[in-house]
Amino acid sequence: MLDKVLRIGVLYDYYGALLTDRQKECLEMHYFQDYSLSEIAEEFNVSRQAVHDILRRTELILEEFETKLRLVERRQTEQKQIRQAYELLNGLPSEVLQQPQVSKALEILERLLET
Amino acid sequence: MLDKVLRIGVLYDYYGALLTDRQKECLEMHYFQDYSLSEIAEEFNVSRQAVHDILRRTELILEEFETKLRLVERRQTEQKQIRQAYELLNGLPSEVLQQPQVSKALEILERLLET
Repeated sequence: MLDKVLRIGVLYDYYGALLTDRQKECLEMHYFQDYSLSEIAEEFNVSRQAVHDILRRTELILEEFETKLRLVERRQTEQKQIRQAYELLNGLPSEVLQQPQVSKALEILERLLET
Repeated sequence: MLDKVLRIGVLYDYYGALLTDRQKECLEMHYFQDYSLSEIAEEFNVSRQAVHDILRRTELILEEFETKLRLVERRQTEQKQIRQAYELLNGLPSEVLQQPQVSKALEILERLLET
């Protein structure tokens, strides 16, 4: 379940803006605020099954966006490469690391790894 | 017009996979294969006005994806930072550039700038 929550979380970060308000609300309540299906159903005055269907459909939509755009996959590959460059430079002898060009470049790469 | 073609080209690179086949075909023929509206209309057996509408609507859809996801904007910002790190390192004295960690890091950054 944790794996699923993480996966949904990552996909939601990338593609959430393309969902409807209802889809976003259900997903957030269920996955990130730990509401049960019944509690969400009560909140929206619909059946538990309807909430289940919205969630399932929304998950499929998110996966479909990823199949088409591959943003998460591309981003992970890119982050891996930036990390590799960062670690290579960070392992240089301290007299090289102290050069302002090197420390500035490392700073930029570090920022790219955080965003 | 060149600016517009470039803009559409970039947006299409990012979001083209989310368009319908008809939208993709019209856009490609008009912007990248230089067909006139009338020629596309003839090809699909629809009116020139219909082609005009499809193109206009498709352009709006692409811009709407960018408004929501900001992929092009984010990518450009990131590429600018990678280029900055690359140039800082590339300006190091040659005895530093010859260190394998540095040349390998530069290679990685160069590859990231190409993709």
